[in-house]
Amino acid sequence: MKALVLSEDGPEVRDIPDVPRAGEARIRLSLGGVCATDLELVRGYMGFTGVLGHEWVGVVESAPGGAWVGRRVVGDINCPCGACAACRAGRGNHCPSRTVLGILNRDGAFAERLSLPVGNLHWVPDGVPDEAAVFVEPLAAACQILEQVHITPQMSVVVLGAGRLGQLCARVLALTGARVSVVNRSRWKLDKLPPTVEAVALEDAGALPLADVVVECTGAPSGLAMATDRVRPGGTLVLKTTIKDPEGFDPTRWVVDEITVVGSRCGPFDTALRLLAAGLVDPTPLISARRPLADGVDALREARQPDRLKVVLDPTA
Amino acid sequence: MKALVLSEDGPEVRDIPDVPRAGEARIRLSLGGVCATDLELVRGYMGFTGVLGHEWVGVVESAPGGAWVGRRVVGDINCPCGACAACRAGRGNHCPSRTVLGILNRDGAFAERLSLPVGNLHWVPDGVPDEAAVFVEPLAAACQILEQVHITPQMSVVVLGAGRLGQLCARVLALTGARVSVVNRSRWKLDKLPPTVEAVALEDAGALPLADVVVECTGAPSGLAMATDRVRPGGTLVLKTTIKDPEGFDPTRWVVDEITVVGSRCGPFDTALRLLAAGLVDPTPLISARRPLADGVDALREARQPDRLKVVLDPTA
Repeated sequence: MKALVLSEDGPEVRDIPDVPRAGEARIRLSLGGVCATDLELVRGYMGFTGVLGHEWVGVVESAPGGAWVGRRVVGDINCPCGACAACRAGRGNHCPSRTVLGILNRDGAFAERLSLPVGNLHWVPDGVPDEAAVFVEPLAAACQILEQVHITPQMSVVVLGAGRLGQLCARVLALTGARVSVVNRSRWKLDKLPPTVEAVALEDAGALPLADVVVECTGAPSGLAMATDRVRPGGTLVLKTTIKDPEGFDPTRWVVDEITVVGSRCGPFDTALRLLAAGLVDPTPLISARRPLADGVDALREARQPDRLKVVLDPTA
Repeated sequence: MKALVLSEDGPEVRDIPDVPRAGEARIRLSLGGVCATDLELVRGYMGFTGVLGHEWVGVVESAPGGAWVGRRVVGDINCPCGACAACRAGRGNHCPSRTVLGILNRDGAFAERLSLPVGNLHWVPDGVPDEAAVFVEPLAAACQILEQVHITPQMSVVVLGAGRLGQLCARVLALTGARVSVVNRSRWKLDKLPPTVEAVALEDAGALPLADVVVECTGAPSGLAMATDRVRPGGTLVLKTTIKDPEGFDPTRWVVDEITVVGSRCGPFDTALRLLAAGLVDPTPLISARRPLADGVDALREARQPDRLKVVLDPTA
């Protein structure tokens, strides 16, 4: 079967054996989404090799027990061992021996078929099109902010970055009734924001009042310092993206001003699906391009361009 | 009156005019305590000049209304404006135009007399000796951890550093019933810990299980990286000391492992006084030396020595 495979030589679309993982569901891919993490993996992050891809929607072809067969699904990307102290404490997402779809010791979704344990699957309601369901994984990551930080309508929230993840975070944060502002350099990305959030050009960010909560979604080396500058004393800084070699970082202000910094990664798929089904979040305007899986390498290159948001991969095209 | 004054030329004990601040209480110093922050101020931190000192206990000589006269007191070091948005929101400790006793735009306590607003004063119960009351300010800072982080008996807490602040944090954290371990290089500092906490030599720290909560009290450039190494995924890292130029710092793990980092500074004086009055915390074994205020410069030097914990200043000696 066709797959977008990362090896030491870089990414390549090639034919690989169509071998299900024993005891797991086998899913035919309907649509995949390219994420910034995929682009980092290509640059060597995590040392991953194998089939890329962890944002996807598909249809179950086979599964233990059979109940899932024929259902349209998305799936949690973390596959915990289920037996260690972290798993027993309900923190399977942090299981030290977990595999992670397309990121850590497990082939990903950018292939005609993928495997995942049945326990990871979530049924996609009929009213949610593939073009929305393919966003469930990053939308769940955005929802995770609300699981970690109590945000109320009285509060002000600044999101740094109106890229793929910043767009989703802004939409989810706006549901709280808080005043949400999103800062970005590119006007066209700000124009993609819904009317429930305030779009702020980068050069105007200094005029914003210090926020109760700042969410760092740029991943830029300057992001941590800028986020620290924009949060009020006693406020909360949420790190949604990994930042390599942060610049101008000084934790002194975190102590003096009692800032809380919250690292935030994966989130609840069921919540994200519910928001999509209820029409509370519409991520579909974020799709910039739909490319055949066969053109996966070009699609990765395209997803790096500053004039693109989400690039999705279609295995049937 | 005699005072330990910091100027551009360094610290010096000299006679200064005995001038009360209008509308505030005037307090005769009974005992002062030298803090790491004082030593940092001497090195140029905050650009402070004036009378040093923010850890103290004294007796009120005069005060508006008169009700406080003759009472033995300690006092909150932050003097907020009372009118700004932060003050109105109940966050006076973070008032942007606050003065801070002996730290920011306000003469401190290392003098025969000091001034503070009456609203900052806390009465010291008779059963609490001056030698314990002089610890109220840093003990309150230790108590602040429990205001910011919910620590339960099921949890494990690692305190990095058994210096002045680490000792107090360990004592307060042990009150929760959590398993508290304190890591330090010096055996004699570990020997000062109460039996309610586990003393761990630095070379054995790697064998500790990853903790639910790690409290950084070393202030060393390596402290942030070591604290990150010792906290479990999903755990909390508390920064109790400012760290200049942290080494080996990489926030990627905070995101991937969803670490929460809590900057923590000043805390509730009333709580600290109650713990002392109830005998729940005894800081008095931490006093390494008692020096006359007149020898204040030597006392600062002594407080830097690795074989000293708290050095207190006595204005009557």
